[in-house]
Amino acid sequence: MTTNRQILLTETPQGKLAESHFKFSPDGKMPEAKDGELLLRTKLISLDAANRAWMQGATYRSAVEAGTVMAGGSVSEVVEAKAPGFAKGDLVFADTGWQDYAAVPAKTAQKLPKMEPLSHLLSVYGIAGLTAYFGLLEVGKPKAGDTVVVSAAAGSVGTIVGQIAKIKGCTVIGIAGGAKKCKLLTDELGFDAAIDYKAEPVGKALRKAAPKGIDVYFDNVGGDILEAVLFGMNNFGRIACCGAVSQYDGAAPAHGPRGIPGLIVVKRITMQGFIVMDYADRHDAALAELQGWVSSGKIKVMEDIMDGLENTPKALIGLLAGDNVGKRMIRVS
Amino acid sequence: MTTNRQILLTETPQGKLAESHFKFSPDGKMPEAKDGELLLRTKLISLDAANRAWMQGATYRSAVEAGTVMAGGSVSEVVEAKAPGFAKGDLVFADTGWQDYAAVPAKTAQKLPKMEPLSHLLSVYGIAGLTAYFGLLEVGKPKAGDTVVVSAAAGSVGTIVGQIAKIKGCTVIGIAGGAKKCKLLTDELGFDAAIDYKAEPVGKALRKAAPKGIDVYFDNVGGDILEAVLFGMNNFGRIACCGAVSQYDGAAPAHGPRGIPGLIVVKRITMQGFIVMDYADRHDAALAELQGWVSSGKIKVMEDIMDGLENTPKALIGLLAGDNVGKRMIRVS
Repeated sequence: MTTNRQILLTETPQGKLAESHFKFSPDGKMPEAKDGELLLRTKLISLDAANRAWMQGATYRSAVEAGTVMAGGSVSEVVEAKAPGFAKGDLVFADTGWQDYAAVPAKTAQKLPKMEPLSHLLSVYGIAGLTAYFGLLEVGKPKAGDTVVVSAAAGSVGTIVGQIAKIKGCTVIGIAGGAKKCKLLTDELGFDAAIDYKAEPVGKALRKAAPKGIDVYFDNVGGDILEAVLFGMNNFGRIACCGAVSQYDGAAPAHGPRGIPGLIVVKRITMQGFIVMDYADRHDAALAELQGWVSSGKIKVMEDIMDGLENTPKALIGLLAGDNVGKRMIRVS
Repeated sequence: MTTNRQILLTETPQGKLAESHFKFSPDGKMPEAKDGELLLRTKLISLDAANRAWMQGATYRSAVEAGTVMAGGSVSEVVEAKAPGFAKGDLVFADTGWQDYAAVPAKTAQKLPKMEPLSHLLSVYGIAGLTAYFGLLEVGKPKAGDTVVVSAAAGSVGTIVGQIAKIKGCTVIGIAGGAKKCKLLTDELGFDAAIDYKAEPVGKALRKAAPKGIDVYFDNVGGDILEAVLFGMNNFGRIACCGAVSQYDGAAPAHGPRGIPGLIVVKRITMQGFIVMDYADRHDAALAELQGWVSSGKIKVMEDIMDGLENTPKALIGLLAGDNVGKRMIRVS
């Protein structure tokens, strides 16, 4: 191999992301691993709403600059290891970006176990599963009998949040876009109710589905849905702020939800942001518990796998539009 | 005594509160205590921004209905006790409303120690002091070296929040309206900096006063100031949501601050509402600590006392406009 297929972000999008913001480069330069680095072959690229946020500015990582390879996490195989602790053939999770090969500092790569299907390393045993686990259990703190609401409920994180909440004895309401996704939530994943935000006003639907009010809200979307849920929260409710996908793919940030801080005070609500890296020292224990739930059938793993590096921009644009069910990823090799 | 001076709320204000929303009634009916009740003589009425919120709808208490005596807490003396555990001459804190005499269920009255000055029972040893204490220490969780920002900093709660934060070894920045208040904060109360929100853009002033960012924000106001502070918060910062005075005295609730939930996620901020009653079981320990700080001179108590029941509406309107420095109250008898 002497060439490296790459997808570049050619300009920083100002509004909605489009394929024209990307360029497919069939003959990029093959990278070389320096001392302390790993040469990686990309196998599965993870697609995440956060990819879009990275384009807009520094978040918990620096912004992706126009003219560079689009950033993105992947499951990759070590081709050459110039760092101790890694060997050819090892599997790692690393920010390789959207390309066939990448050389990355070994300390930024995380060694992964070999398993089948490999895709589970990006879904339930990847960032999605860990985000659901820690966000729900550590930030949302659900108790048996609580009513838990999750938005983007048919997505990679939401499908797992709802199923963990059911394991914990909660009443679970999912908010998703479209009848098909809603049917999946109630018929296949055990949610008690599902609200199609494209078909009905969320506030009214929540009053019907959660007559005793909402104790925990796992927020993936922000915006109007956060506002609607806020008005239905119970005293001492917890809102786990995981993302604001409604606000990633557009222009300037919208105004925040009404009721903040008034309802936060009166209802003594806690809103807390988190990212999964904050719990890195407890990932192993979480993975063990998730594996138990998957093998006993208590968690069904939803994945949405597309083939071909060249389709990665399209896959992200579709994800931001809510096309996916479960964890979306691209199989590169 | 056969008559009872009262101030009625004659209509639910739709916009800014005005004296025309109240009626002074010089010859209300003298109440009688039934079994289980106390007949109280009002001494000092507490004025609080929350009084305005009570007019608008149910909060942590039911709404004040138009045509009834305006609600309000006071330090009062027991005239007649028809309940065990209370005797003539006892001092209590109770929701007597704005009137000379009130009969209240004994279980809603809280016995107070006798002390001089009596006004301290409404300021540093009252709801204001306890709100500052629990909100800062339990919700804000300041550590030595943290940068703490408090809004409505020259008010009853803010003056105490800032001084407790100094005791805890923090850098303290107050936000208040007007040069006179700002001078008081830095020259008399030991704040490290004060921002006059009427004279300068708060965001810019915060970047100068808090070059290392903000770790704890004690929010008394909501609105644009909350938004400005949010953009200056550090990772893992805490926002104690105490009130939203900017939004009490107007029409429909404004949209919430931008950056929610985006900044909450990225910076892993915790926003938490609280009210002082939630900590009722620990009030005694808090009061003991506050007394120690007052007697050693570490907390200077700021009070703003006006005379005459008939002036209570004016005093509240002025409070909402930010006229007071420290705890505002009306001496009735």
